[in-house]
Amino acid sequence: MTQKETIGMIGTGVMGKSMAEHLLRAGYNVFVYTRTKEKANELMEQGAIWQDSVADVAKQTDIIITMIGTPEDVKEVYLGEHGILANARAGTTLIDMTTSSPRLAVDIYEAAKQSKVDVLDAPVSGGDVGAKNATLAIMCGGDKAIFEKMYPIFEIMGKNIVYQGEAGAGQHTKMVNQISIAPAMVGLCEALIYIKKAGLNPDSVLDSISTGAAGSWSLDNYAPRMLIGDFAPGFAVKHYIKDMKIALQSAEEMNLDTPGLKLALEMYEKLAAMGEAETGIHGLLKYYE
Amino acid sequence: MTQKETIGMIGTGVMGKSMAEHLLRAGYNVFVYTRTKEKANELMEQGAIWQDSVADVAKQTDIIITMIGTPEDVKEVYLGEHGILANARAGTTLIDMTTSSPRLAVDIYEAAKQSKVDVLDAPVSGGDVGAKNATLAIMCGGDKAIFEKMYPIFEIMGKNIVYQGEAGAGQHTKMVNQISIAPAMVGLCEALIYIKKAGLNPDSVLDSISTGAAGSWSLDNYAPRMLIGDFAPGFAVKHYIKDMKIALQSAEEMNLDTPGLKLALEMYEKLAAMGEAETGIHGLLKYYE
Repeated sequence: MTQKETIGMIGTGVMGKSMAEHLLRAGYNVFVYTRTKEKANELMEQGAIWQDSVADVAKQTDIIITMIGTPEDVKEVYLGEHGILANARAGTTLIDMTTSSPRLAVDIYEAAKQSKVDVLDAPVSGGDVGAKNATLAIMCGGDKAIFEKMYPIFEIMGKNIVYQGEAGAGQHTKMVNQISIAPAMVGLCEALIYIKKAGLNPDSVLDSISTGAAGSWSLDNYAPRMLIGDFAPGFAVKHYIKDMKIALQSAEEMNLDTPGLKLALEMYEKLAAMGEAETGIHGLLKYYE
Repeated sequence: MTQKETIGMIGTGVMGKSMAEHLLRAGYNVFVYTRTKEKANELMEQGAIWQDSVADVAKQTDIIITMIGTPEDVKEVYLGEHGILANARAGTTLIDMTTSSPRLAVDIYEAAKQSKVDVLDAPVSGGDVGAKNATLAIMCGGDKAIFEKMYPIFEIMGKNIVYQGEAGAGQHTKMVNQISIAPAMVGLCEALIYIKKAGLNPDSVLDSISTGAAGSWSLDNYAPRMLIGDFAPGFAVKHYIKDMKIALQSAEEMNLDTPGLKLALEMYEKLAAMGEAETGIHGLLKYYE
């Protein structure tokens, strides 16, 4: 058996932690760094090797996966003075699985080319449950040959793994996903609040509408929780706001007006201002109550 | 075998015609009236009996089904001087399958009680294809005993037949359906236009997003047609505008603010003003192009 590559994992929050666990179980050496060291404790108990900085990870690993916060964080971690590109060896492959800006993904890809480092943008959907069960959808942009080389790594963490095209196409695809959910969640909330106000029986209404044109993943998965007032995330409002802002900026860069996205973003920002930043995105129902 | 009831069908447009055909094939005597007589010609060839007025239908039938245009039409046909209630015999059952106002459904129900006539509000979803294939979803309000008595009639025309509660509950349920679709269609259009503007491969993007949180009936059924520019109805913009206006009025009567519905209605009205009133509702993509 050939020696497995050493993988760096930067960012071990809810998502990154589960993903690193799968890599450890698959037999990889995993070097970890995250801003709050305690968040890596469980991983270290499972064999992950702590590093004190992004640079230390970058110097010693063949593949580096990042799962961090905002595009600003991604920019700093990749392009900053003490970042990955300043420290990675030629031939390293970098995979940013954070949901981040498509344009930034292109910038990082181009900067990395100069250092003979390969980069993929590979954001995911499926949330904490998908990360835990290794059923994430992974949407990947970058060089196709590199995508194919990394496919066995992706398979350890996800199920629906699709190459989307050149650098940035993974992030763009994730934006498409978030854009299509945003107004739909508004519609779902308006439907459910109407059910309540009109005094209808929610179960029989859902029996009537869930198999037709109103049918959706959100209706199947969120509506039952919304009806009993279970607004636990799932996917938190504050993270969704971050994603929608990236999507809106990206749309504006393409001169694309998106009134539905704008409305949803405004509503979610009001919801966050109401103290609901940590609630699940289906908590938008509270906006109406 | 007992003699089958005589059924009146008022309104033989695309929907009503298919529904009447199923009733004829099931062996019922069907008396028809519609504003434009030629629209009943095919039904008459299949054995339907023409009547020259709503009143003539009402005087001779045991069950009357209406599938007409706007709430104003419904009001005239049921409550007008020459309408059904002024002419129907005691013991007749009236079923309004038009998508109409929940409040009007209650008004008709109450007026009918005084004439010892039973009324159900039973709007449908599933469109022309559902009507043709007898797979309509039927959402019914009114007295439960009458719903049960009429169930064999509903079964001839639909598949997903659900009792929703007292008079008006069928119409309210249809409003819930339309409300949840409206902003979702906005989201779907913004997602697809983003795909085009970003130069993504639509097939691979849909592979990534259609099984996750962005998954929906609309994405599965409309997106492929939208991507090839096939905007034939299905369900026409002008009819959807009518439904959204009823939904908005009904929401306002309950002091419910529905910004997503309002936005969608505004956009569809602009689309209609662009000359697209007859296009399918997925033609909203043209608003962005």
